[in-house]
Amino acid sequence: MGAKKVAVLGAGSWGTALAIVLADNGHDVTIWARRDSQAIEMNERKTNKQYLSDVTLPENIKVTTDVKEAVMESEAVVISVPTSGIRGTTRQLLEADVKIPLIVHATKGIEPDTLLRVSEMMEEEGINEVSDDIVVLSGPSHAEEVAQRQPTTVTVSSQVKDAAKRCQDLFMNTRFRVYTSQDMVGVELGGALKNVMALGVGLAEGLGYGDNARAAIMTRGIAEMTRLGTKLGADPLTFAGLSGLGDLIVTCTSKYSRNWRAGYRLGQGISLDQVLEEMGMVVEGVKTTQAVSQLAQRQGTEVPITTAIYDVLFNGQSPVRAGQLLMDRDPKKETEHTTDF
Amino acid sequence: MGAKKVAVLGAGSWGTALAIVLADNGHDVTIWARRDSQAIEMNERKTNKQYLSDVTLPENIKVTTDVKEAVMESEAVVISVPTSGIRGTTRQLLEADVKIPLIVHATKGIEPDTLLRVSEMMEEEGINEVSDDIVVLSGPSHAEEVAQRQPTTVTVSSQVKDAAKRCQDLFMNTRFRVYTSQDMVGVELGGALKNVMALGVGLAEGLGYGDNARAAIMTRGIAEMTRLGTKLGADPLTFAGLSGLGDLIVTCTSKYSRNWRAGYRLGQGISLDQVLEEMGMVVEGVKTTQAVSQLAQRQGTEVPITTAIYDVLFNGQSPVRAGQLLMDRDPKKETEHTTDF
Repeated sequence: MGAKKVAVLGAGSWGTALAIVLADNGHDVTIWARRDSQAIEMNERKTNKQYLSDVTLPENIKVTTDVKEAVMESEAVVISVPTSGIRGTTRQLLEADVKIPLIVHATKGIEPDTLLRVSEMMEEEGINEVSDDIVVLSGPSHAEEVAQRQPTTVTVSSQVKDAAKRCQDLFMNTRFRVYTSQDMVGVELGGALKNVMALGVGLAEGLGYGDNARAAIMTRGIAEMTRLGTKLGADPLTFAGLSGLGDLIVTCTSKYSRNWRAGYRLGQGISLDQVLEEMGMVVEGVKTTQAVSQLAQRQGTEVPITTAIYDVLFNGQSPVRAGQLLMDRDPKKETEHTTDF
Repeated sequence: MGAKKVAVLGAGSWGTALAIVLADNGHDVTIWARRDSQAIEMNERKTNKQYLSDVTLPENIKVTTDVKEAVMESEAVVISVPTSGIRGTTRQLLEADVKIPLIVHATKGIEPDTLLRVSEMMEEEGINEVSDDIVVLSGPSHAEEVAQRQPTTVTVSSQVKDAAKRCQDLFMNTRFRVYTSQDMVGVELGGALKNVMALGVGLAEGLGYGDNARAAIMTRGIAEMTRLGTKLGADPLTFAGLSGLGDLIVTCTSKYSRNWRAGYRLGQGISLDQVLEEMGMVVEGVKTTQAVSQLAQRQGTEVPITTAIYDVLFNGQSPVRAGQLLMDRDPKKETEHTTDF
């Protein structure tokens, strides 16, 4: 596979890590950063201290603050911005007014109120004017470890089969293994919904519960994600894969996860306002809990774990009582998509 | 539900913890222990120091070394012995020559050479002479945490639907939540196969790999277990449940797991002989790796992770190289039951 010109929109930790993978594969990578100061640091000092300490950027990564310059003549564009930045970034990409053979997004979330997945938000903004080949990339992948070339696996999925395969070819190397999936709905939902369960696991651990409780919430969390996801058109087995289970594992057992950490502090009895103030960053799982509650209501699906977390976050429910209510529910079968926790 | 007379065969940590759950539910429990000294300690001092330090046994648990005395007039018998003890214990149960309304086994393993599941071993010994209602109980459950009344969830499964339901009623309480499943094959296999993956995760961590690698092995491990298990008649979704994924999570992220620990030491470059000597206990996953390799060969199923672990354990393969070979495999789809890691 020859070297390609690839643009990465977003200079956060994940965008930068993906740019490093692409650069390692010999591609010419241009990162679009929003702030001049960051672009200058990345170009001149080859670092990105705020988002990825201890990393030296390869020579074949350039950084610009001009979207058009970044995407011009690119054979692929990778979008890695927060969910709240997807619409704006899509519009900037459209303004560049060039056809793009392949667009890969690596953003996990569901839009509040509209309850749209990321690729649906992009479609609503008219992404198909520049490309039909939209791929999602997701999986258990701390940016820090990817930047350190630690072994990592991810899934890529598209409604266009050939596009997923081309994305696999673009990213895959001996440290970054890429699987293809045909279930774009499931891959996008898994990455978003797992943040709710990470909050739940953090809550349980903040209460002092042990390994059994953590495994219970993760497993019944996957069952709950599967139940809602299949109603929305996903394949149930996708949630047992890298973008569901895999991502949940990495999020729940890691020192890096903001969602887990926020749950942990809530479990210790700290209020949501105080927790969010402490963290000083967006905790995606909080908004996603609201979105999932709305989605589940709309679909008529029971999501007892999400509901318990919602009640702790927004209705003043005590974490201990929320856990007791979950354990006290009627006896259930384990896998029946109409039953619950 | 009224108090029942229940026997528990096996006075190890798990048998004792299950006896405590039953005693908490008001049942009269008789544990069968092999050694006089242990029975005396448990009866007189209400402790079981060797297997469950820091636990005081409830008053409604008695201990005997006489199987017949334990099972006489019991409405249920719970068997919790190592896989290698299943045939002998079944024979002793048959010698008591009493009908048993419900038999629950809580043993995880596959018999070497015959490659039989635990319930199949029991059937071969003639368990059906005393009962047709055989149930497996499995899930993410450290005995220590169950004994401390920490929140725990498990699955029970039987070919006799009503038997699984009765087992659920027997064990369920607000700290010990029990789900029913109709997939006995999948529930039994999950508990056994997960020990192989725990070795693999330990290996990766012993090599110094991070969270991404751990999540990769666990997730692709579940995919591999699912691939083999469905060939053997299991429901693929069972492996994403408590007895598969749930148990794997608890085993791989825990300070208690012997299998994880053995893998970790191997990853650090210690030889298998030395590791087993250090541990001074059975490491079920080592034998299970052999059994799974044989099963996969017989079924014509590719099990790349198991094969990699087998090569490290028995063919002198270096852990680093085994990991590289896994990452270097051809590009794959994520969920297609004929493809692999």
